[in-house]
Amino acid sequence: MYDSKKTFIKKANIISPFRAILFFYVVAIIFSTILLSLPFAYKEGADPAFIDVVFVAVSAISVTGLTPITISETFNEIGYILLAIVLQLGAVGIMALGTFVWIILGKKIGLKERRLIMTDQNQTQFSGMVRLVKQIFLVLFVIEFISFVILGTYYLRYFPLNEAYLNGFFSTISAISNGGFDITGSSLIPYKNDYFLQFYTIILIIFGAIGFPVLIEVKEYLFSKKRNRVFFRFSLFTKLTTLTFLILIVFGTIFIFLLDMNQFFVGKPWHEKFFYSFFQSVTTRSAGLSTMDVSQLTEQNHLFMSFLMFIGASPSSAGGGIRTTTFALVVIFIFTYARGGDSIHLFKREVHKQDLVKAVVVTLLAIFVAYTALIVLTAIEPFSVTELFFEITSAFGTVGLSLGITSELTTFSKIILMVLMFIGRVGIVTALFMFKRNKKGGNYHYPKERIIIG
Amino acid sequence: MYDSKKTFIKKANIISPFRAILFFYVVAIIFSTILLSLPFAYKEGADPAFIDVVFVAVSAISVTGLTPITISETFNEIGYILLAIVLQLGAVGIMALGTFVWIILGKKIGLKERRLIMTDQNQTQFSGMVRLVKQIFLVLFVIEFISFVILGTYYLRYFPLNEAYLNGFFSTISAISNGGFDITGSSLIPYKNDYFLQFYTIILIIFGAIGFPVLIEVKEYLFSKKRNRVFFRFSLFTKLTTLTFLILIVFGTIFIFLLDMNQFFVGKPWHEKFFYSFFQSVTTRSAGLSTMDVSQLTEQNHLFMSFLMFIGASPSSAGGGIRTTTFALVVIFIFTYARGGDSIHLFKREVHKQDLVKAVVVTLLAIFVAYTALIVLTAIEPFSVTELFFEITSAFGTVGLSLGITSELTTFSKIILMVLMFIGRVGIVTALFMFKRNKKGGNYHYPKERIIIG
Ligand SMILES: [K+]
Ligand SMILES: [K+]
Repeated sequence: MYDSKKTFIKKANIISPFRAILFFYVVAIIFSTILLSLPFAYKEGADPAFIDVVFVAVSAISVTGLTPITISETFNEIGYILLAIVLQLGAVGIMALGTFVWIILGKKIGLKERRLIMTDQNQTQFSGMVRLVKQIFLVLFVIEFISFVILGTYYLRYFPLNEAYLNGFFSTISAISNGGFDITGSSLIPYKNDYFLQFYTIILIIFGAIGFPVLIEVKEYLFSKKRNRVFFRFSLFTKLTTLTFLILIVFGTIFIFLLDMNQFFVGKPWHEKFFYSFFQSVTTRSAGLSTMDVSQLTEQNHLFMSFLMFIGASPSSAGGGIRTTTFALVVIFIFTYARGGDSIHLFKREVHKQDLVKAVVVTLLAIFVAYTALIVLTAIEPFSVTELFFEITSAFGTVGLSLGITSELTTFSKIILMVLMFIGRVGIVTALFMFKRNKKGGNYHYPKERIIIG
Repeated sequence: MYDSKKTFIKKANIISPFRAILFFYVVAIIFSTILLSLPFAYKEGADPAFIDVVFVAVSAISVTGLTPITISETFNEIGYILLAIVLQLGAVGIMALGTFVWIILGKKIGLKERRLIMTDQNQTQFSGMVRLVKQIFLVLFVIEFISFVILGTYYLRYFPLNEAYLNGFFSTISAISNGGFDITGSSLIPYKNDYFLQFYTIILIIFGAIGFPVLIEVKEYLFSKKRNRVFFRFSLFTKLTTLTFLILIVFGTIFIFLLDMNQFFVGKPWHEKFFYSFFQSVTTRSAGLSTMDVSQLTEQNHLFMSFLMFIGASPSSAGGGIRTTTFALVVIFIFTYARGGDSIHLFKREVHKQDLVKAVVVTLLAIFVAYTALIVLTAIEPFSVTELFFEITSAFGTVGLSLGITSELTTFSKIILMVLMFIGRVGIVTALFMFKRNKKGGNYHYPKERIIIG
C-alpha cells in the first residue's frame, strides 16, 4: 500500500496542490465578486464602488471581515445570505483544499501521528481524502444547523421571528467561519452585556479556528468504543495546536486587561473587565467580531493585539496569520537553543527539523512582509503607524478588527490589504510555492516539508 | 598542539568569557560614571541629573551616542577628552574581549578559515591572543594618530589652532569608535556642504564598524610578501561581512533617497541628494553622526532607517545590532529554503548549521525584545510609535540617531534604553549566556557555537 501511495504522489506533481489553491482562490474571488454585485442584493440607494465590492469579496473568501463599506447599510436580506454563502465557501473551500495538500505532503513524509485522521487505512488514497472532506462538511453542517436553531431561537428576545432567525443564521456562519462580518452595523457591541451570547459565540469561533484535524480527532475519540478510548492517542499536532491556542487566549486576556487597567477598564465592574478582555483576546485568534469599539483601547494595547493577530489561528482552520503551531515551534526553538539543546521533544515525540525550519522561515518572512507593508502604507496614508499596523496584522491574520480606517484608505492600500488577506489565509509558504516555476530537471528541488506549519 | 588546546579550553570554563564581558561592562560603566561626574569636567553652571550622567556613561561605553543632555553645553575641554577616553574604552574593550571569546569558541569548533587571524600557529593559545589584542590596539592607534593629524590640520580652516586639533581629536575618536557623540552641538550639520570631511568621516566610521577581524586580515594581506599574496585567502567571515556591509550601504542610500524623493529631497541639487542619502545610510550601520536633522525626513524613512539600525554593524566591531552577518545568514537561509535547498554554500564554503540556527535565534529574539520595548515605551511615553521605535532600534543598534526625544524621556524609559544599548553592544546571545547558571553536571549543555554571529 505504501508503494502505491508513493507512485501516486510522484504522478501527481507535488507543486500542483499549491496551484490548485491559487486557482480555487482566483475563481472564488471572481465568483464572489459577481455574487455580491447582483443588483437585487443591495438595499435601495446603495451603490458601492467596484473596488469596495472586490474588497468585500476577497475579505469574505479569506474570512477576514475587514470592509470599507458597512454591510448592514449596503446589503439587503438576500445580500446577507449571499455573503454568508461566500463566507462558508471561503472557510470550507481553502480548508478542504488545505487538508488535501496537508495529507498528500504529510503522508509523503509519513509521520505516524498524522495517519490518525485517515480512518480506514485500507482505502485508497483518493477515496480516503474524499471521505475526509465529506467528514469536514458533515461536522460543519451539523454544528451549524444546531447553532442556527439555538441562536435563532435565542434572538427572539431581541427581534421578531424572521429577523431573529436571519440573525441566528448569519451570526452562526460569521462566527464559525471566523468571518467576522456583522449585520448589526456594530459587530457584537449591542450584546456587550449578554454574556450567554458572547460565550456561545466564543465556542463557535473556537470551532472554526482550532483547526479541522483537531475537530476530526475529537470526533474520532468521542465516537470510538468506550474500551478503545484508553488507547486513543491524540496526534502531536492536535496537542500542540490546542495547547498553544488556549495559552494564547489566557495570556491575551491577561495582557489586554493589564495594558488598559488604568485607562479603558477604570471603574468598570469585574465581569465587564473580564468579558471585554476575554472576548477581545479570543477574537484576535481570527474571528474579528468584537463586543466593543477596539479603538477605545490604548495604543500599547493596539500594538499588543497586533502581535496576537499576527499569530492568528491554527493551521487547517478558518483562520490566518503565521498560525499557532508556527508560533509555538518558534518559541520552543528559541528556548531549546538558549538551553543548549539541539533537538526538540514535545509530548514524548521529537519534532522534525524541517518543521522547525519552516516555522522559522514563515515567521521571518511574515515579519518582513508586514514591516514592508507598514512602510508602504505609511508613505501613502495619513494615518498613524499603529492604526496602519493594526490594519495590516488584522488582514494578514484574517481577523478583521480595525481601528476604523478601512473605508478611508486609497485603492492602492486596499489592494495591499487584499494581498495580505490572501497570503494570510493560504499561508505564507503556500503563497510562496504558488509562484515557483515548475522546472523539470532544473536546479531547484521542491521542498518536501508538510503544509501544517504556516 | 591541538590536544593541549582542547585541554586548555576544558579548563577555562566556556561560560567565563561571557561573564568576563559582563564584569568588564559593569566596571567600565561605574568607572565612566565616576569619570564623567568629575566636577572639573563640566562647563560653568552645568549640573546634569545623575541618571543622565549614567546614561551618557552607558551610551559612551556601548559607543551608542544617544544622550539626554547636549554634550557641548555640559562638558568643557577636559570633559571632551574624558568622554573620548570612555568611547575608546568602549570601542576597544568589548571588541578585544569579544575577539578573545570568538577565538576561544571559534578555535574550539576549529573552522580553518578563522585560524587565519592567528598569525603564528606555533605560538601557544594565550600568547597568540595577547599578540592579537596588541595588534588591534596598534592598528587602531596608528590610524587614530594619523587621522588626528589630518583632521586637526584640516579643521584649521574652521577653527583657531587649539580648537582645530581638539575637534580633530574628538571627531577622530567619535567616528572611528562609532561613538557618534559630537562637540558641535549639532553633529556634522555644520559641515553639511563639506564633502571632503563627510567622505573622510565615512572612511573612519567604516574602519570602526567593519569588524576587527576584517582589518587584521587586510593588514596581513597588505604586509605579506608580494609572491605570497596570490595564495592569500580571505576568510569566509571577512568576505561575507564586507559584502553585506557594502550592500546595506548601497541599498540604504537608494531607499533613503526614494522614500523622501518627493519630500525632503525636492528641489535639492544632485550632490546634496546623494550625500545626504549616502551619509545617513552609512551612519545607520552604527556611527550615529549625521549631516542633517533626521527628524526632517518622512515617517516612512524613519521606519526604514529603524530597520537599518536594527541590523547594525559587523561582529567584533565597535557597532551593535543583530550584526551584518546575522542579517546576511537569515536572508540567505530564507532564500535557500524557498529554493528547496538544505545547505548553504557561500564563496565555495558550506555554512555551519549551528551558525544558521544562531543567526535565526538572534534575529527573532531581537525582534521580540524590540517589540516588547516598544509596547512598554508606548505605555509610558507621550511620543509617537515611530519616534519610540526609532529610539529603540537606535539604542539596540548602538547607533545614536534620535528624532529628538531622548532628553524628554522618563527615568524608567532611559533605563530600558540603557539595557538595550548593553544588549545591542555585547550581542544578544552573549547577553543571554551571561545570566545562565553554570550548573556542573546539570541538564544543560552549554552551546558550542562561536560568537561571531550576534
Ligand atoms: K475574521
Ligand atoms: K554610535
